[in-house]
Amino acid sequence: MTALIRYRQEAGRATVTLDNPEKRNAINLAMWRELRRVIEAASEDEGVRCVVLVGAGEHFAAGGDLEEFLTLRATLEQALVYHEEVAGALTAIRHCQHPTLAMIRGACIGGGLEIAACCDIRVCDASARFGAPISKLGFSMYPGELSGLLKTCGQATVAEMLLEGRVLDAAEAARKNLVSRVVAPEDLQGEVDAAVRRILAGAPRVASWHKHWMRRLAHDAPLADEEKAAAFAFLDTKDYREGLRAFMEKRQPRFTGN
Amino acid sequence: MTALIRYRQEAGRATVTLDNPEKRNAINLAMWRELRRVIEAASEDEGVRCVVLVGAGEHFAAGGDLEEFLTLRATLEQALVYHEEVAGALTAIRHCQHPTLAMIRGACIGGGLEIAACCDIRVCDASARFGAPISKLGFSMYPGELSGLLKTCGQATVAEMLLEGRVLDAAEAARKNLVSRVVAPEDLQGEVDAAVRRILAGAPRVASWHKHWMRRLAHDAPLADEEKAAAFAFLDTKDYREGLRAFMEKRQPRFTGN
Amino acid sequence: MTALIRYRQEAGRATVTLDNPEKRNAINLAMWRELRRVIEAASEDEGVRCVVLVGAGEHFAAGGDLEEFLTLRATLEQALVYHEEVAGALTAIRHCQHPTLAMIRGACIGGGLEIAACCDIRVCDASARFGAPISKLGFSMYPGELSGLLKTCGQATVAEMLLEGRVLDAAEAARKNLVSRVVAPEDLQGEVDAAVRRILAGAPRVASWHKHWMRRLAHDAPLADEEKAAAFAFLDTKDYREGLRAFMEKRQPRFTGN
Repeated sequence: MTALIRYRQEAGRATVTLDNPEKRNAINLAMWRELRRVIEAASEDEGVRCVVLVGAGEHFAAGGDLEEFLTLRATLEQALVYHEEVAGALTAIRHCQHPTLAMIRGACIGGGLEIAACCDIRVCDASARFGAPISKLGFSMYPGELSGLLKTCGQATVAEMLLEGRVLDAAEAARKNLVSRVVAPEDLQGEVDAAVRRILAGAPRVASWHKHWMRRLAHDAPLADEEKAAAFAFLDTKDYREGLRAFMEKRQPRFTGN
Repeated sequence: MTALIRYRQEAGRATVTLDNPEKRNAINLAMWRELRRVIEAASEDEGVRCVVLVGAGEHFAAGGDLEEFLTLRATLEQALVYHEEVAGALTAIRHCQHPTLAMIRGACIGGGLEIAACCDIRVCDASARFGAPISKLGFSMYPGELSGLLKTCGQATVAEMLLEGRVLDAAEAARKNLVSRVVAPEDLQGEVDAAVRRILAGAPRVASWHKHWMRRLAHDAPLADEEKAAAFAFLDTKDYREGLRAFMEKRQPRFTGN
Repeated sequence: MTALIRYRQEAGRATVTLDNPEKRNAINLAMWRELRRVIEAASEDEGVRCVVLVGAGEHFAAGGDLEEFLTLRATLEQALVYHEEVAGALTAIRHCQHPTLAMIRGACIGGGLEIAACCDIRVCDASARFGAPISKLGFSMYPGELSGLLKTCGQATVAEMLLEGRVLDAAEAARKNLVSRVVAPEDLQGEVDAAVRRILAGAPRVASWHKHWMRRLAHDAPLADEEKAAAFAFLDTKDYREGLRAFMEKRQPRFTGN
């Protein structure tokens, strides 16, 4: 079987491509598993500073691979395995230590929308459209997949997409803050490159600290004393001293990740 | 006493009309009770697929019926009864098994805003305005009513409406995602009809499953194994098989609710 | 040492000015302490009805005073003290009994953004810009400071500002509901004055009740019976009776805070 997830790494940027363009990058079970594997590997890789998720061709991803549902998701046992794999891949994206960015053209539907919603940043062009009209397919979204969508999009927008089966265009998605920003098709790659440069200009470990605290604060429980102390892990790093020094000397910092 | 809540049902669509136009549909205690009753009945009714809430005449609802406050809400005991009734009606809307849609013209103020915020989808025309300037009346919103507002509108927008007493026009409400969308007055009925058609095109039980999971995931507690299994209730339905088959055969599905 | 926090009170409006314009109102430890002190005093002051936070000159505040970090925040012990002071000042703003309004021009960055996010209402002019590009300085935001930002701005916008280090202009901040509204520079003072007038037109105690319930409902725990009863504290006030009476008589109410 050909791998339908491509992985490329260059100068701190990992690019994960959903590569099934004849099916508008519909995601099958093997792809979900591979997606989880490459994201978890990228998360552990010290050479990676930023992960860009993108679809091959004109679309991000049009959803799950429905044909498989008749064979690989036919029983309750299968369904639990299948969707825990999907949820596992989404959790891997959310827990990735490095900032994740979805670069979105065309259809960002169903599983594609779930992936994009679990990324930290979503940049799209005017061709993008967003939704999950699965009520027309007769099934409901797995709660482990729905949770990420709710965190990013909020209840009202999710209700519109799931209950009404509405598909939002790029402008409406921007108005509802479902995407971070919309650009013209010819500017999409440039905007993503600029975002990656901004991410790479920061100290490497700061991003994973921020991601940790953002996840932690989503839970309504007070911080323990050890957690408060852990929030100052930066004090012992060379990058912190370099960052402050560069600021005082009005020059660009040279971060090493130490 | 004339019933000031009208209920009509036709082809899967239930329409609940706040019908007190001389008072801009100000809602009195009898109306809150009746609202709860008709919504709970619609929720149980298998013939209903979608509930549209609308105000008679040029307004959605201008708030509670203040004259009553001097007689029916004068003591703490009365107030607890009164506002638990209001909160009960709002909870009935939120827990309605079928998608709920507020169709909004003119004033959507106080209790009217509370009702709209508990619906899944809010469509308004350019005449709509939103707020709850009750600080000028010298009383605070009951927490059981405030909670729905916070879930839909978010803390910052609620602060503007409650603390500043600001009333938002349709454009600002759209920018703040307080409404799902705004259309011209002559297009409002058409937009609502289109939304209802989209809802009716989905499998009946999927909507109530989605509504259940959206409410459940608002609580920060992990899913039990039984809950995960329950998320696949669709596997045993004819509608799920019909939905997938129709998709494969590139035709419209014929759902039966089974 | 000159006090770099100025406090003025006039006709129910307290104005707190960050006054360190040579450093674009960068906030040092002494200022955080003083900010907490004046806000806590204003909160207790029955003569105050509304607190406006503003920066002297062309900026709101450009962040913390970084030079101090090398001396006053060098060790873990120092850092815990330092940032608990910052978090304490932010909590004082959030818990202030009276509505708080940030009036924003120019840089609203880092600590400045944290302050603005803890206010109830944010009004800015077109010169405002928002962000926290501290990844370039090599340190992460203290969770006790990050939490207020997440509550107001939401996870997606915070991710853009912290992970990407992006600075948002006024229009984008409005689209993302990071500010309540944007006006032209020449209209900023007028818009803030109008907001203050709207706040002053309300009954004094209603604002603090609403602030209490909004904070309380951010926690996912059911209300106790005593809390439900406490929600009707207004029943025993003269202002409630005056508010209703004025409404019936179609005149402006005269509130006394009793």
